[in-house]
Amino acid sequence: MEELFSRDAGAMRPSPIRALAKITADPVIISLAGGHPSPDAFPLGRIGEILAGMANNLDPASLQYGPTAGNAELRREIVGLLGGRGIAAGDEEVILCSGSQRGLDLLGRVLLDPGDAVLIEVPSYPGAIACFRNLRARLVGVQQDEDGLRIDELESVLRGLRDEGVRPKLLYTVPTFQNPSGATLAADRRLELLEISRREGFMILEDDPYSELYFDEGGADGIRPIAAADAGDVIYLSSFSKILSPGLRTAFIRGPRELIARVELAAQACDICSSSLDQQIVLELCRGDFLPQHLAGVRRLYSEHGEALLAALDESMPQGVEWNRPRGGFFLWMRLPERIDAEEMLGLAIERGVAYVSGRHFCVDGSGRNALRLTFSKESPERLQEGAKILANVIRDELSA
Amino acid sequence: MEELFSRDAGAMRPSPIRALAKITADPVIISLAGGHPSPDAFPLGRIGEILAGMANNLDPASLQYGPTAGNAELRREIVGLLGGRGIAAGDEEVILCSGSQRGLDLLGRVLLDPGDAVLIEVPSYPGAIACFRNLRARLVGVQQDEDGLRIDELESVLRGLRDEGVRPKLLYTVPTFQNPSGATLAADRRLELLEISRREGFMILEDDPYSELYFDEGGADGIRPIAAADAGDVIYLSSFSKILSPGLRTAFIRGPRELIARVELAAQACDICSSSLDQQIVLELCRGDFLPQHLAGVRRLYSEHGEALLAALDESMPQGVEWNRPRGGFFLWMRLPERIDAEEMLGLAIERGVAYVSGRHFCVDGSGRNALRLTFSKESPERLQEGAKILANVIRDELSA
Repeated sequence: MEELFSRDAGAMRPSPIRALAKITADPVIISLAGGHPSPDAFPLGRIGEILAGMANNLDPASLQYGPTAGNAELRREIVGLLGGRGIAAGDEEVILCSGSQRGLDLLGRVLLDPGDAVLIEVPSYPGAIACFRNLRARLVGVQQDEDGLRIDELESVLRGLRDEGVRPKLLYTVPTFQNPSGATLAADRRLELLEISRREGFMILEDDPYSELYFDEGGADGIRPIAAADAGDVIYLSSFSKILSPGLRTAFIRGPRELIARVELAAQACDICSSSLDQQIVLELCRGDFLPQHLAGVRRLYSEHGEALLAALDESMPQGVEWNRPRGGFFLWMRLPERIDAEEMLGLAIERGVAYVSGRHFCVDGSGRNALRLTFSKESPERLQEGAKILANVIRDELSA
Repeated sequence: MEELFSRDAGAMRPSPIRALAKITADPVIISLAGGHPSPDAFPLGRIGEILAGMANNLDPASLQYGPTAGNAELRREIVGLLGGRGIAAGDEEVILCSGSQRGLDLLGRVLLDPGDAVLIEVPSYPGAIACFRNLRARLVGVQQDEDGLRIDELESVLRGLRDEGVRPKLLYTVPTFQNPSGATLAADRRLELLEISRREGFMILEDDPYSELYFDEGGADGIRPIAAADAGDVIYLSSFSKILSPGLRTAFIRGPRELIARVELAAQACDICSSSLDQQIVLELCRGDFLPQHLAGVRRLYSEHGEALLAALDESMPQGVEWNRPRGGFFLWMRLPERIDAEEMLGLAIERGVAYVSGRHFCVDGSGRNALRLTFSKESPERLQEGAKILANVIRDELSA
């Protein structure tokens, strides 16, 4: 069998988060691991109403094949939603796909040949790392700090590549409430990044599932997508997974028209179309003023989660443990004292009832050994506090071992 | 932009059927083109009941991320469904995917490197041709006759490849009510094919969306999947798209455990999971005795469609036009007199109100110029008869031009 597999298949590795899924499915375990939204953030009531309406008068179109580019009405809603984020887009610059991961894969297929260099934050989203690695791209890490991707590091990495005669094709970034770091790229760095991408001739792929999920009730705190400052040249990927439901696999890409046309071609042969029913439900959810109201509630919910975890960490963590203070999203990044290996500690943590993802899975440069990602989206504030206490004790025991 | 695209993207071509979709969306046009199921075959009433039940008591799990391999209960239902088709499968030999096209792409990713030889029927399903071509596989055609793939042709193609030192990796076949030919591979040929694949060391990918859709009320007429005679080594791909609904993107692959594990790895980075809601609905539809009852009705419907088209062709087609008589499925294959180019004739046909797909799009060897595929699934018997008459007149005019 093994000899029949493709070279791409030879590069594939199991997802560390999916591998934890069996463990975190146990309700006893407090999961600070997988980035699942809270079920409390799902618009169950409104979707129930939509399903009831459909049940009485089911449109066969909801069960038929749909356009590869997605439901035309939903695409128009998305153009409006993008406008609300400051991003200009024509209908032909937008395509729907069944989830952001699907979008990443389609973009990778269309843009990357084996060996192509992709710039990626350290740490970064493992689903993107896996996607690009499976296409056998060369992943080149760029360090972050609390304000996101470091521009000086990027320039230094670019110089190194230039010396090798390599021009990167793509820079992948989650600039807002990053997964896994929780960091947000500073406004001035966004503009610098855009300038550098034009100078160097690489594309920016801005992955933005979280920007609507800011804690500050006062608004988005001046955060604008990189794509809001572009001339239509940034590839912008976003999704309904974190703001409505990930089970309704609906995400979208905005990009240059020629690229979107090529993604549509790829999708024709990759999945024909996304779920017609899911798209119909998401369309109904986008109509009227439901979404802004819903988002206000979701923001409140995740603010409470984030603040509960941060307060519990402040209270319980031993000296020498550091973490950042995200202003939104699902995640924070924790650094343990050098002598602790987060992956080795995980077994003990799970035994005591708490799970996280070890930092190394997020770092393409082999770093992250003593780091870990904590997710505060899914568990309740009470369980987050409990989880933080358990984790603090695990770390304390490791330190005194 | 163009220089940024991958080599795979350079190989991509628009789907001829999707390109026709805009034309066939016009309700005035009688579409014998795209292979859409009839909306009359959708279980609207039963799905309405399921949605009403969900509306009252929506399980958050239907909106959450699900397992990459698919809903565990649905996988078990599928193991049972496979058993009903004579195919043995353990839970770990089955994986769900969001549509058959998705399954083809995942299998292609895991099995094929650029340049790998794939044996494929002439004519064959354009979605499979596109999928393998986009992975830059080498497509090697094997002729069919009314009993499907010709074994003598296969042996001859294999000899030719052997002379080149090439071992094919995969043979792709739709053995039952083939798309586009409507032909069914004879029982003895199925066993011979299996034997040859073992002797030569290539895998068989059996794509089987249509075998439940036989016309003969007496039963499946002795048709058994190739996979029903294997030792678990045939890759068997099937789907709910043609028997329930293609909008609920739910298909499944059965194959060797190591292959399924690798497909799951690929899927983790390609789409994480399929729609949780769609899978929940399909699961409900699989429960109890609904599916067999529904299938009896669907078979009756498509029998009437197929017979209406065949009768109208018998009545109206001029001499020199030939077509086969499928015993199930959605399609038949028509050969026009040599001097007619089906692609050139299409414009006139559409002008007169009928659409089909030209034969060349199904043939990897450049043949099919004077052939075309007629789909009888979607249009009503009356419109099929009307369409056949229009088409007969178009052909007559071409012949006398």
